[in-house]
Amino acid sequence: MSYERLHERFRRLGQLAEVGAIVEWDQAVNMPEAAGASRAQAMAGLLRLRHEMLTEPVLGDWLDKASEQTDLGAWEQANLREMRRLYARAHAVPADLVEASANADKQSEQAWRRYRAENDFASYAPYLQQVLSLKRQVGQALAAALDLDVYDALMDEFEPGGRSADVDRVFAPLEAFLPDFTRAVLERQKSTNLIEPEGPFAVKDQRALALQLMPLVGFDLGRGRLDVSHHPFCGGVPEDVRITTRYDERNFTSALMGVLHESGHGKYEQALPTQWLNQPVGAARGMVLHESQSLLLEMQVCRSDAFLQWVAPQIRAAFPAQSAAQPQAFALENLRALYGRVRPSFIRVDADEVTYPAHVLLRYQLERDLIGGKLEVHQLPELWNERMLALLGLSTLGNDKDGCMQDVHWPSGSFGYFPLYTLGAMVAAQLYAKAKAVHPELEQRISVGDFSVLDAWLRANVWSVASRTTTQQVLEQGTGEGLNPRWFIAHLQQRYLG
Amino acid sequence: MSYERLHERFRRLGQLAEVGAIVEWDQAVNMPEAAGASRAQAMAGLLRLRHEMLTEPVLGDWLDKASEQTDLGAWEQANLREMRRLYARAHAVPADLVEASANADKQSEQAWRRYRAENDFASYAPYLQQVLSLKRQVGQALAAALDLDVYDALMDEFEPGGRSADVDRVFAPLEAFLPDFTRAVLERQKSTNLIEPEGPFAVKDQRALALQLMPLVGFDLGRGRLDVSHHPFCGGVPEDVRITTRYDERNFTSALMGVLHESGHGKYEQALPTQWLNQPVGAARGMVLHESQSLLLEMQVCRSDAFLQWVAPQIRAAFPAQSAAQPQAFALENLRALYGRVRPSFIRVDADEVTYPAHVLLRYQLERDLIGGKLEVHQLPELWNERMLALLGLSTLGNDKDGCMQDVHWPSGSFGYFPLYTLGAMVAAQLYAKAKAVHPELEQRISVGDFSVLDAWLRANVWSVASRTTTQQVLEQGTGEGLNPRWFIAHLQQRYLG
Repeated sequence: MSYERLHERFRRLGQLAEVGAIVEWDQAVNMPEAAGASRAQAMAGLLRLRHEMLTEPVLGDWLDKASEQTDLGAWEQANLREMRRLYARAHAVPADLVEASANADKQSEQAWRRYRAENDFASYAPYLQQVLSLKRQVGQALAAALDLDVYDALMDEFEPGGRSADVDRVFAPLEAFLPDFTRAVLERQKSTNLIEPEGPFAVKDQRALALQLMPLVGFDLGRGRLDVSHHPFCGGVPEDVRITTRYDERNFTSALMGVLHESGHGKYEQALPTQWLNQPVGAARGMVLHESQSLLLEMQVCRSDAFLQWVAPQIRAAFPAQSAAQPQAFALENLRALYGRVRPSFIRVDADEVTYPAHVLLRYQLERDLIGGKLEVHQLPELWNERMLALLGLSTLGNDKDGCMQDVHWPSGSFGYFPLYTLGAMVAAQLYAKAKAVHPELEQRISVGDFSVLDAWLRANVWSVASRTTTQQVLEQGTGEGLNPRWFIAHLQQRYLG
Repeated sequence: MSYERLHERFRRLGQLAEVGAIVEWDQAVNMPEAAGASRAQAMAGLLRLRHEMLTEPVLGDWLDKASEQTDLGAWEQANLREMRRLYARAHAVPADLVEASANADKQSEQAWRRYRAENDFASYAPYLQQVLSLKRQVGQALAAALDLDVYDALMDEFEPGGRSADVDRVFAPLEAFLPDFTRAVLERQKSTNLIEPEGPFAVKDQRALALQLMPLVGFDLGRGRLDVSHHPFCGGVPEDVRITTRYDERNFTSALMGVLHESGHGKYEQALPTQWLNQPVGAARGMVLHESQSLLLEMQVCRSDAFLQWVAPQIRAAFPAQSAAQPQAFALENLRALYGRVRPSFIRVDADEVTYPAHVLLRYQLERDLIGGKLEVHQLPELWNERMLALLGLSTLGNDKDGCMQDVHWPSGSFGYFPLYTLGAMVAAQLYAKAKAVHPELEQRISVGDFSVLDAWLRANVWSVASRTTTQQVLEQGTGEGLNPRWFIAHLQQRYLG
């Protein structure tokens, strides 16, 4: 009976999470700015309520008693383990601190939208300092209860079992590999005669192309939407996945790949086992696998020769006047060059896969020091500039908008997330290499727009597993080994110097 | 201290209501149909939670003790009265029944969207029967606890203090007046040489005109939005009012007046006193005053000669090609005729103000019998047809889509709402007559697009009052008398036969 009580409680929590996910999406897509303060309070109130429902002392008894139940199958046992994990995390942080932190996050995120547009770090800094100060307290409370390092305790929210020692272990070979490799790629690309397609590319045409491709690559538009937001994301719930993008009328390439990236997230959500929706075990395993699914679709598949061969005629058909005016710019060879271009740049979300890890390394090191108390908010602009100069040769002095203010993560209180992007890129390479090894015809299928072989393999090995096992086990069972950076390195070598 | 505890509890309830309002709006505007079942459960769960928070036994003690507090001002005392009312209503209905009823409502509303489109009453009827059966139980539970008639107990949710005996009293003179009056108006309008403006009127042009006029008539687009839904409504929260409409490219007149109608609702919400938002006393008084504000703007103001004189050039500018092609169709005289046309028709929401009360009378009588158990769902098509023939000379046989299936109210469980539309029309006429008497220059101001005099009077007499007093008191204090149908009758006579 205890398990059944827990099941009912988590079903209710799942319902509140669903409501919260839709309102989160609404805040980014629809809400007028003037409603920000009130909405922030409402969302913090909802979070507090969920926290109270998750920390009610009786749940501890139910969890203890359910552990002795002998009538639970493998899914139920895994569900119980996830419940225990969520209970322990929630129990570690006092409700007042949860609400104060959520409130600070929301207010800071809204201030960030304003001050980033104005490139005004000084006015924004107090908001971020408040977020950080409360997040440190949250991290310390979690670390004490879960016997973890403070930073790991925060990362564990996004990636259960994620530890910075493991991150360091797989980042080290990449960090060693990238500088020389990047130089070699840049050298080789100097001779590429790349033609920028000239716009304007009307938003409605870009959107039509995106809506045409999404179902073709396996995103079910009957259970999701595509909208516009300042910062692209994949939100909503598995039955109603909300993807957002932003359009630039001068350049169609970025929104197109952005939509395909978010579609990778969306496909994972849409493929989660329906009988476990609204239960902890039914959720996506963690953000490493989640990011791996978007990067697998965007980087491994959609920037490959096979995919570009299939999609090129559709791009030309979407922009008939522009492609007729510049046939060479829309030729397959040029699209390949555009989507394979490596170029150190300021903005992480626009970065290519070769320079992307540098953006992650920079943030990972800074946020560890911020959380660890070795660094304060006011030092960020200077340190950001120093590190960007060292890593990518770019100065962000006086340009915090494109420097330390560019990402929504810290403004919204997400510390411990950034390394997961690069872990996701590594997992994507490892999974795709294995899928191709098992199905040698896979790329040929992609080149004719057939995703069925790839999706069946991902469904069996990743999507249908949901949270029944760990990320580590998903990798071991699917690919025969734990996370190994060599697959990502091999992919980079093959694509950019192969 | 008890009052302060109640204040905090209702603040939290208000936050959940805010989240719920946004998700309700989302369901009508954005949600893919496939997410309907899951969303219905999530919303029912949220409602149940609010019900639990509102019925916790300790609230009864707090309410008792707060009544003895001597430190409460007039607003606090009124707030306490509203809290007591909400507690008593919530306490009267068991939580399981609340959730079952909400669930049936959501499922029925979604089924209605499907089956109405297919004109399939037989397939839809079981859903409505389920809604009705649970709503009767809710009504009976409320009636027993509040010592009210079952139908009145349901109406009281939308219009606190609303009683069918009072409805009957003010409907009687209108029912006696309308048949001969309608015949006379139809006779007079036979000779009107009306020209239908010819489209197409592109959705984007109609939307642009709406967005141009909304702020000019006093709706703050910085704290609200305009979107599209199947059934137009005004939702959201005072800081973020969500208005919807639907566009017909063959005819711009309906969406334009629809947006102005919803803007009337929206202005009331936006003008509620900010220091009392999220407290019961800070909410709009009830749906009679709410409907009076939309009808005051649409019927009293926007269909008046004064307003049409001001808006006509803007309409012509919004559709330059169409108005150049048919100058007579867009001439003031013809726009007046279009917006003053009386024509018996099937659809309530498209009805003119002369035939509208017939739609309300029909529904009011049927829903009283449905709730009272004198009528069952399967009898609706036949009775609807009979009554429509008698009232407006129209048969709905085989056309339930435009007959008993046309409104969202019953499908979504709203019984006891329909009479409030006509009460609202009466209140609108009474308030506007008084405002004009106090400010003889009012119509001249409207004719140059100046709403400041009207809005100041409404703010002082209606909007700023929120729920501090009753609807009856708002009328008595603002106009010097209780609800009197003679103002509405005088308005109809003056506009249509004057």
